[in-house]
Amino acid sequence: MNNTISDIKITKCQSSKINEVDFENLVFGNIFTDHMLLCDYKDGVWQQPEIVPYAPFLMDPSSKVFHYGQAIFEGMKAYKDAHDDIWLFRPDQNFDRFNKSATRLAMPEVPEEVFIGGLKQLIQLEKDWVKHGNGSALYIRPFMIATGHGVIAAPSTEYRFMIILSPAKSYYSGEVKVIIAEHFSRAANGGIGAAKAAGNYSGQFYPTKLANEEGFQQIIWTDDATHTKLEEAGTMNVFFRINDVLYTAPTSERILDGVTRKSVIDLAKREGIQVEVRSVLVDELVQAAKDGSLKEIFGAGTAAVINPIAGFSYKGEYFELPKMENSFAQEIKTKLTGIQTKELEDTFGWTVKV
Amino acid sequence: MNNTISDIKITKCQSSKINEVDFENLVFGNIFTDHMLLCDYKDGVWQQPEIVPYAPFLMDPSSKVFHYGQAIFEGMKAYKDAHDDIWLFRPDQNFDRFNKSATRLAMPEVPEEVFIGGLKQLIQLEKDWVKHGNGSALYIRPFMIATGHGVIAAPSTEYRFMIILSPAKSYYSGEVKVIIAEHFSRAANGGIGAAKAAGNYSGQFYPTKLANEEGFQQIIWTDDATHTKLEEAGTMNVFFRINDVLYTAPTSERILDGVTRKSVIDLAKREGIQVEVRSVLVDELVQAAKDGSLKEIFGAGTAAVINPIAGFSYKGEYFELPKMENSFAQEIKTKLTGIQTKELEDTFGWTVKV
Repeated sequence: MNNTISDIKITKCQSSKINEVDFENLVFGNIFTDHMLLCDYKDGVWQQPEIVPYAPFLMDPSSKVFHYGQAIFEGMKAYKDAHDDIWLFRPDQNFDRFNKSATRLAMPEVPEEVFIGGLKQLIQLEKDWVKHGNGSALYIRPFMIATGHGVIAAPSTEYRFMIILSPAKSYYSGEVKVIIAEHFSRAANGGIGAAKAAGNYSGQFYPTKLANEEGFQQIIWTDDATHTKLEEAGTMNVFFRINDVLYTAPTSERILDGVTRKSVIDLAKREGIQVEVRSVLVDELVQAAKDGSLKEIFGAGTAAVINPIAGFSYKGEYFELPKMENSFAQEIKTKLTGIQTKELEDTFGWTVKV
Repeated sequence: MNNTISDIKITKCQSSKINEVDFENLVFGNIFTDHMLLCDYKDGVWQQPEIVPYAPFLMDPSSKVFHYGQAIFEGMKAYKDAHDDIWLFRPDQNFDRFNKSATRLAMPEVPEEVFIGGLKQLIQLEKDWVKHGNGSALYIRPFMIATGHGVIAAPSTEYRFMIILSPAKSYYSGEVKVIIAEHFSRAANGGIGAAKAAGNYSGQFYPTKLANEEGFQQIIWTDDATHTKLEEAGTMNVFFRINDVLYTAPTSERILDGVTRKSVIDLAKREGIQVEVRSVLVDELVQAAKDGSLKEIFGAGTAAVINPIAGFSYKGEYFELPKMENSFAQEIKTKLTGIQTKELEDTFGWTVKV
């Protein structure tokens, strides 16, 4: 890079649109703050990062992202504490994963001073958009797209890194029922399933639409070769509580190394919950549902944080989960969001002040 | 759709850039003609298609294509015959596949009058860009991207369909050596490998870069579960000649149903070549290379048409293919391009006049 972070060029918007926003009735991910960060990569180097008013930008019809899908992203959140300080949750983990995704898609790594440093400057500018209180957060979307031209299937030589911010309440509302994948799948062995790549999501929409039509909100994906191992839910990692043991699949080339996932594992262990990181078989889950040892299933992800699952369908049979008092999902969600919002002590050192 | 094809709105450019183009020294896919077609989908219907000067267009930073990879395309070619008539090659096949890709990615199907009718009008306008002669063609790139806004992982409600045109000579130059995939893979069972989706390409760039560094231009992908079956080359389907029999893998959810592939099969059969559509095992290929029965490997795709492969590497061992006189690759390429350019009789009825 030619410049240091102190060189971020800031162009402020003429007037804020914050007063037009109903912060109590936000739909996830469809309102953005006044400014965005962008940084272009060309001639083999990152150019000067800029913070500019949020606005559409020009793209050539032959831009590589449209044709060959070089696009990656991260999802993060910022929270405001009682003293009006703003906190990020494990941003180093998102930064590391972003650059792993970049490498897997033959894209350049983004420097820390652009990703983390730029993010902090952007949030400082937008600090009024981060609200206190139950479920409120600023959702952060860093992403990178291939902006180079040409319809030949080869990596781009030009890229744009951007960060956009969206005020958020909780991600899911209502009961989540899931279907276990029997035919479709999310990722291949040796593929890009572990990367937070745009192409991993579009392939899930059609099977999810079919699931929606049957009354299910999400799919729990299974391994593509045998459909016998439970993997992840596409936008969340998945945990299974059988008796008092919490299970989740190990990360792999097919499964995203979720920041919430790894935080749940550490937090559950601290709380004295036995956690086993191993593949859970579909048959095992069905058996546990039948004999009553299956107590809970929940998803874990940045957007949803912890999302309890009400029941699952497999081969046309629906298994309703018991209503649990003192559920692991609720306990872990309370502790995790407490740490994120600084209401509880962060014994792990996960939170980073902006 | 609200309108019929006769309603295509045409806005011509002020002056053509055709005289700036060196048609004898074209790099594949990096120069575009003066105009492009675009048609937007919103409120559940396709809007009026337009032909406008080729130009960048505005995209919102939260456009779904950047975050969730809803993007599909086709590759086609137009040829000019000795009478200055312009011909498409099996456009119905590309149109059908495009809409299959659309369905798999939860995108709306594009009407025939927009895809085929719009393409014909666009090419008529750009007819001077289609040149006669050896390897000359107009490469056609229809594509569709998700233009709806919002960073929530769900299908877009707005899309843009476009066609851009690029004058082309042949795709590959020089000798093509391939490496057989042992670890990485292109597609999952139950995934989107059969769709011409942008996300299928970005995942290949990093493994291909590694292959390039070892001196190989392309990868022959194997099935992701066992890496024992030969599948396709990512931008081409692959044919193997063992003794005098031509083998190619059956299409599947992991393998693109290539238009050139199916044309090669029909043409080879017409020429009296025995063709077997079945999975070829890597072990079988290595054995055939060792005992001398492996005569040829070639790729088949719209961009490359037929691309002979000089040799392959597997587990660090390189197998050079024999230099064949009267190769199947050359015979089929001559016949196929002869039909495409109208120099040979089209007994199949594959060519369609613009």
